[in-house]
Amino acid sequence: MDYQAVLEEVAAYARPLVRRGRVADYIPALERVSADRFGIAVADIHGAVHGVGDWEVPFSVQSISKAFSLALVMAQSPGSQGEDGIWKRVGREPSGTPFNSLVQLEAENGIPRNPFINAGALVVTDRLQTLTGDASTSMLDFLREESGNPDLAFDPAVAESEAGHGDRNAALAHFMASFGNLENPVPSVIEHYFWQCAIEMSCRDLAVAGGFLARHGLRADGSRLLEAREAKRINAVMLTCGTYDAAGEFAYRVGLPAKSGVGGGIIAVIPGRCTLCVWSPGLDARGNSVAGAAALDHFTTLTGWSVF
Amino acid sequence: MDYQAVLEEVAAYARPLVRRGRVADYIPALERVSADRFGIAVADIHGAVHGVGDWEVPFSVQSISKAFSLALVMAQSPGSQGEDGIWKRVGREPSGTPFNSLVQLEAENGIPRNPFINAGALVVTDRLQTLTGDASTSMLDFLREESGNPDLAFDPAVAESEAGHGDRNAALAHFMASFGNLENPVPSVIEHYFWQCAIEMSCRDLAVAGGFLARHGLRADGSRLLEAREAKRINAVMLTCGTYDAAGEFAYRVGLPAKSGVGGGIIAVIPGRCTLCVWSPGLDARGNSVAGAAALDHFTTLTGWSVF
Amino acid sequence: MDYQAVLEEVAAYARPLVRRGRVADYIPALERVSADRFGIAVADIHGAVHGVGDWEVPFSVQSISKAFSLALVMAQSPGSQGEDGIWKRVGREPSGTPFNSLVQLEAENGIPRNPFINAGALVVTDRLQTLTGDASTSMLDFLREESGNPDLAFDPAVAESEAGHGDRNAALAHFMASFGNLENPVPSVIEHYFWQCAIEMSCRDLAVAGGFLARHGLRADGSRLLEAREAKRINAVMLTCGTYDAAGEFAYRVGLPAKSGVGGGIIAVIPGRCTLCVWSPGLDARGNSVAGAAALDHFTTLTGWSVF
Amino acid sequence: MDYQAVLEEVAAYARPLVRRGRVADYIPALERVSADRFGIAVADIHGAVHGVGDWEVPFSVQSISKAFSLALVMAQSPGSQGEDGIWKRVGREPSGTPFNSLVQLEAENGIPRNPFINAGALVVTDRLQTLTGDASTSMLDFLREESGNPDLAFDPAVAESEAGHGDRNAALAHFMASFGNLENPVPSVIEHYFWQCAIEMSCRDLAVAGGFLARHGLRADGSRLLEAREAKRINAVMLTCGTYDAAGEFAYRVGLPAKSGVGGGIIAVIPGRCTLCVWSPGLDARGNSVAGAAALDHFTTLTGWSVF
Repeated sequence: MDYQAVLEEVAAYARPLVRRGRVADYIPALERVSADRFGIAVADIHGAVHGVGDWEVPFSVQSISKAFSLALVMAQSPGSQGEDGIWKRVGREPSGTPFNSLVQLEAENGIPRNPFINAGALVVTDRLQTLTGDASTSMLDFLREESGNPDLAFDPAVAESEAGHGDRNAALAHFMASFGNLENPVPSVIEHYFWQCAIEMSCRDLAVAGGFLARHGLRADGSRLLEAREAKRINAVMLTCGTYDAAGEFAYRVGLPAKSGVGGGIIAVIPGRCTLCVWSPGLDARGNSVAGAAALDHFTTLTGWSVF
Repeated sequence: MDYQAVLEEVAAYARPLVRRGRVADYIPALERVSADRFGIAVADIHGAVHGVGDWEVPFSVQSISKAFSLALVMAQSPGSQGEDGIWKRVGREPSGTPFNSLVQLEAENGIPRNPFINAGALVVTDRLQTLTGDASTSMLDFLREESGNPDLAFDPAVAESEAGHGDRNAALAHFMASFGNLENPVPSVIEHYFWQCAIEMSCRDLAVAGGFLARHGLRADGSRLLEAREAKRINAVMLTCGTYDAAGEFAYRVGLPAKSGVGGGIIAVIPGRCTLCVWSPGLDARGNSVAGAAALDHFTTLTGWSVF
Repeated sequence: MDYQAVLEEVAAYARPLVRRGRVADYIPALERVSADRFGIAVADIHGAVHGVGDWEVPFSVQSISKAFSLALVMAQSPGSQGEDGIWKRVGREPSGTPFNSLVQLEAENGIPRNPFINAGALVVTDRLQTLTGDASTSMLDFLREESGNPDLAFDPAVAESEAGHGDRNAALAHFMASFGNLENPVPSVIEHYFWQCAIEMSCRDLAVAGGFLARHGLRADGSRLLEAREAKRINAVMLTCGTYDAAGEFAYRVGLPAKSGVGGGIIAVIPGRCTLCVWSPGLDARGNSVAGAAALDHFTTLTGWSVF
Repeated sequence: MDYQAVLEEVAAYARPLVRRGRVADYIPALERVSADRFGIAVADIHGAVHGVGDWEVPFSVQSISKAFSLALVMAQSPGSQGEDGIWKRVGREPSGTPFNSLVQLEAENGIPRNPFINAGALVVTDRLQTLTGDASTSMLDFLREESGNPDLAFDPAVAESEAGHGDRNAALAHFMASFGNLENPVPSVIEHYFWQCAIEMSCRDLAVAGGFLARHGLRADGSRLLEAREAKRINAVMLTCGTYDAAGEFAYRVGLPAKSGVGGGIIAVIPGRCTLCVWSPGLDARGNSVAGAAALDHFTTLTGWSVF
């Protein structure tokens, strides 16, 4: 596969869609990002990396961090016990309603539907906090090491900006706490969650750091982060729940496990082959990058690769 | 009307139901109250007061305070403007769902259904805080004056106990704040709300203090607290929304405007005649005093008084 | 009370609002009614009747029939047994959601929230069908007798028109049948329900026929239709549930038990005094007559009569 | 791959779970099936078929038919136009709520969430009825031809039994009709839907007939039923929506596109390799075969095959 040529063609296809959609504007730090950006990178399972466009420009990972926090919780709790621990507190079903919804949380006694809605990610962060003592720094450390980029950093402006607009997440966290589903104090869980979302990474960084999902759990250095079974299961959750309440549509069009963020990034996995990351800040009504989703769709059309 | 005789008969009717139901146990300070208690008092519009049983024993007013905070907000903002101010931020419709529900709040953009569900009372408290600078002390001052009992006080154990179990109310408040429906900081609103609920009053105190609802807005000293129209409207909200999601059933059986609290108290109004307060801690599944509701039901049967 | 003068003043107040709102247009037979109509009638408990405007023009009673079907079911099943029979199958709580909602029906196992939402009225009609063998003719017979107008009739165009647009009511009925909450075949229940709604009556007819609600259960001829307790209870259900999901607002503004219909009519009761009926076809967003509600509001302002 | 050996091992693993769960009992014709049954078959893409246990015993396909009706609608409307036609009337998102729910249907204007909940399948059947003139016979004809078994037949007892308990489906259909989302009369759509569900097939028949899903759209005879893209998309919908509201859990555990039925059957697809069908009547709380799901789980463990 001539990845470089494919990426060029994908970029040519997607570029007319750049600026479509709407840049996330609920916090000033995100709103300032130029809508013109477009980058895509692919990291194959052997370590080769290719990219086009703004593929080396850092952006705010936002909810893409949720895939990594889930992986780290699984990695920190080896064996099925670790899995059991987290899955008693968060479900694995698509949410069927917008990603911040409190309705299901109420109907289901404070157990969020899945780890990729905000409520679920707060529970995962809470667990990671208990396991590591620092849910945001431990994630940053992992991402630096796995991406091979020691310069990865938090964007404090984004983290503080989120905190200043965090009433909805505070509501979710207090609500789950009222059901006894948080181990750590609400303010600490929320803070680490915001700092995780405020990590800045490029398409290159994310494609490389997410390589273990394509390598059935093996890290870049060949050591094992997750059992093959666990890596497959994260992919399954990404496919069914990774793109907010558009997961069914995304599976239908793209057919790949993926996790998107409101920073405009999307990572996607072709198990046994490669990990992709695409970035363009314009979002559709459901919070997924318009040009990014189109690029992944075209990538699967050109390569014929799909999990189906 | 020989009130004393009627109250004796009512008490005889209701006493077998005392200990039915379940004493509120979500906070230790309430749980410690004896389930055996039963008291009832009536204050007629001319100032005469009668009572039987534990009618002079103070108990935690809890949600009964919601009727007074609504009245005080109305009284503090004379004219229809005052009314308009609060009714833009809280509705007047029965909730149709359990009293802590977040569902409607989400569907209706952070506007609570009515001022007597917790979310609505938080908005009213927030408004009272803005109007008076101290939403709990101003209420206590009013209740002391209106009841003629200068010894009324907060129960700090209850207030602190609520705060220690306040995640659900914190969730509601943060959630409304995320929609821009709070004027004051969340922690301050919650704290004043808890202190309002933690006021201790007897049946006597409450029946006397609520006299203005039967006197079409006139205070005990003859001065006007509310316009007649406003007093009638509070009664209307009490009838349609005052007894959690059992308001329809309560109107059907009892036929009087009423406001209940999980401390086991219920105040009820017979416009133009008298205000009643009954207390017995055992609650039904919807949070209303079992013996208290039966007592009010029997009172209307004996007297033939009902708004219908 | 000089009713005629009051009605003139009420009409003068409400007329500028005539043509406000929107005439029901979901069936052609209703859509054809002129938006200019306005009439109001009052029947006092002694049999005197007054009216102004189009108070003698027949219109489609629509949901106002629900108050009469509930009364007839109660009347047909004397004693508390009769009450028990119907209240096991339908609740007494305000719906809190739009009047056709299937949501609560699903959550609450096919038991409608109250007898005045469509689902609840279908259950009441089903019961009346079982009790009388003909739920629509028995209602027409009663209304003819009670109004003293032997010319009352169904409007076949309306009944057939409803049937042609009846998928939503068919859905409700089949859904309740799936929970075992209908005694008669779905098509027969729906048909009788549509014919009840299609009865044509004037303000005069309705105010007179509804007199038993103001007379604590006594019919025009002095015989007893309902126990006083039962009549009060129907008034309570009207106040808490009678004006679709605007019952709280209606109680707040008007303060009277009332039942509205999408034909633009509203009956209201002042217990112990009189029964009113107002008609103007323009509806607000919740299905209640705009000029009709304003007229009742002004009537209570002028007379000072309110249940509160 | 020695399929026969794998199937033997899978059967040994799953057999202890046979009789777990609960045989569907909402219609007598299903309730009579022995809970002891267990069979599994695999049809590879080259036409080889293997099976163990009761793999040649016919059972009621029930909701498995939904995968075939979707495929037939797509096949009958070549090009993207065909797709567009059906996807305007039914969504592709997981339902997030129990499979018969009316809630979402109400919130989303009569557009069912996906083609595999009952409401969605009624829409697909309605479309197939329009396209073929006979939505049930055309499906039977296709299944006979594709399975190579001309003896496939409807079970009239099941179809009639469904019709006798069909109030909930009638409610769904009338409700969608009220939104204008049905082309054919409600009774005809429901009837064809019931007959589709009442087709009897064995594991062998279903694995062979579903071969086109593993062959990227090619039929057994090599002719094209669907574009590769369309076959992949049906697999995507099966993975995200195919096992009622347990689709996330199923993807997590099994990692294969699958469609289950309350008759106890499940078909699953390994794209590019084979189609599986397993049958055991005991169902879990969500309506999926207990032993069947465990068998598929173990099959993927033994073979290492998963789409992730």
